[in-house]
Amino acid sequence: MSAVYGGVEGGGTHSKAVLVSAEGHILAETDGPCTNHWLVGVDNCINGINDMVQRAKIKAGLDPDTPVCSLGMSLSGGEQKAAIQKLIDDMRERYPKLSQSYFITTDAIGAMATASDYGGIVVISGTGSNCKLVNPDGTQVGCGGWGHMMGDEGSAYWISHLAIKTFFDARDNLVTSPHDINYVKKAMEEYFQVSDLMGMLPHLYRIFQKSHFAGFCRKLAEGGSAGDALCQHVFTEAGKALARHIVAVLPKVHQDLFSGELGLPVLCVGSVWRSWELMKSGFAQVLSEAQAHGYSHFQKYSLLTLRQSSALGGAKMGAKNAGASLPLDYSANVNVFFSHTFNQ
Amino acid sequence: MSAVYGGVEGGGTHSKAVLVSAEGHILAETDGPCTNHWLVGVDNCINGINDMVQRAKIKAGLDPDTPVCSLGMSLSGGEQKAAIQKLIDDMRERYPKLSQSYFITTDAIGAMATASDYGGIVVISGTGSNCKLVNPDGTQVGCGGWGHMMGDEGSAYWISHLAIKTFFDARDNLVTSPHDINYVKKAMEEYFQVSDLMGMLPHLYRIFQKSHFAGFCRKLAEGGSAGDALCQHVFTEAGKALARHIVAVLPKVHQDLFSGELGLPVLCVGSVWRSWELMKSGFAQVLSEAQAHGYSHFQKYSLLTLRQSSALGGAKMGAKNAGASLPLDYSANVNVFFSHTFNQ
Repeated sequence: MSAVYGGVEGGGTHSKAVLVSAEGHILAETDGPCTNHWLVGVDNCINGINDMVQRAKIKAGLDPDTPVCSLGMSLSGGEQKAAIQKLIDDMRERYPKLSQSYFITTDAIGAMATASDYGGIVVISGTGSNCKLVNPDGTQVGCGGWGHMMGDEGSAYWISHLAIKTFFDARDNLVTSPHDINYVKKAMEEYFQVSDLMGMLPHLYRIFQKSHFAGFCRKLAEGGSAGDALCQHVFTEAGKALARHIVAVLPKVHQDLFSGELGLPVLCVGSVWRSWELMKSGFAQVLSEAQAHGYSHFQKYSLLTLRQSSALGGAKMGAKNAGASLPLDYSANVNVFFSHTFNQ
Repeated sequence: MSAVYGGVEGGGTHSKAVLVSAEGHILAETDGPCTNHWLVGVDNCINGINDMVQRAKIKAGLDPDTPVCSLGMSLSGGEQKAAIQKLIDDMRERYPKLSQSYFITTDAIGAMATASDYGGIVVISGTGSNCKLVNPDGTQVGCGGWGHMMGDEGSAYWISHLAIKTFFDARDNLVTSPHDINYVKKAMEEYFQVSDLMGMLPHLYRIFQKSHFAGFCRKLAEGGSAGDALCQHVFTEAGKALARHIVAVLPKVHQDLFSGELGLPVLCVGSVWRSWELMKSGFAQVLSEAQAHGYSHFQKYSLLTLRQSSALGGAKMGAKNAGASLPLDYSANVNVFFSHTFNQ
């Protein structure tokens, strides 16, 4: 068969695989469960990846026993070098028919590679959260991405946790809730199938699943859209938290990234961005404050979303690592959903 | 043999067992590891308890095959009724020679039973944290005690986490540290045997052990005592957090508890209280603010520590549940380490 390149987007809840031709055409796409190896372990991670790619081969009418030229993976949790090498070694050994070569990058870098070859800031907010600045010269500066125990501010996990913690604290009289807690209380009881705070303990410990816990965020988004003030509040806070990640990397942004037509390009990845309208005020407030305090060359920013899975950027990087160049039409891959120019 | 009553204090890191005679004399004491069933599971919890009590029988020269009259357990994590019943059922089935009857209460109530039969406020800060008001009429009001995912403010876990989070956030430029981070950085690298932030991820996820993570607090206490400003800061914050638990239950404190010689008695349990000098300013500040804002009858408070394991209070409650009354000399069981009278 002619050269085929594989790509994977591995998230904390869902994953995707894509097969791409040498001309950059998508041959097949498949879906799978969480492949964050920190969350599900190495075995589940590589099984999940193999399964998705093999299914994609069959879907594209290819022989599943013929390895693809390269497999480029854009993985949440794909930061640590030693851990990545172990994933690659294990895949090579266990699934020799999967691919000829392997490349792993983070979800942030894979997303950026899907959107542009010039750089920008990626802000991921899905199950977890993460921010990465990629400058035009390829240098990277990160903020966050440490998982729910040490960060994940502004993520679905964090939003769910903030709402539930607000309820616990109100019940304990430890911190007064800024708004009525009844919607959150009812939504929590329904989503987790519990009747009191005690009932939440197994969900926080014994049977804790980050992805399920984070899924409560959807109920809060529904509440926010329906007008519940506490739900709106937690999303406003999430907007602030995500914007603070951008402010954290601002000092390292290359001058050229501010001066394009879009202003500073911010690529927004992950399902929490679907609730942009609920986060907007908090997000805009934090960026305006930062701009007012010393970033006079920061005049405009635009928020972009991907129209394609970042498995595509993963495929591109995997191919590049194997010596091939996949032509991608970046303008077709992104969508600008918000732009803001600061008052002079 | 004459009547022997057993008691257990089960903590998030260490546990203790005690055997008491009908006259209230301690016959033997033994130590064991964490017996918080939320942390170690039901099997490890009840194995640990059986092992400690059986060793205590042998130490006291008793026949290990003869059950004690009652076993009263004061357990961290001993809140939820269904979970407690399961622990008791499993113990009865697996270890028929352990005890004739069983009783489980929380670590807070067991501590209070060791200190007084009149009530007061218990503030636990060990691996985790918890606060419980016991009024003279026996009614209880709690605050906190939800574990590290939803609370534990002011605990050793929380202090360790706050210090490490401050370091992560400073490195990420997400939040500026109020003080130099170098001591915390070095202490963290040494305690967890890591060379960078990435190295901390396994300690936060794959091999996370709450008790080991919380143990880092000791290094921070050393740093604070040696003058490190960031270490002092995290303990000041812990002092504030623990005091906020007291403020949370203040509205429910029975009038009589304010009017004793000691003022409001606050029983302080757990290893973090050994760092009282580092927490004092934050703790006193929060209580003074609360007193100034509407608690004019709150004129004085005293902080007490136990001179005996709360396994003793557990034994007393277990005996009472079995129809026996253990005479305890409360004045010999506590020590007043701090008193404060507010300015008029």
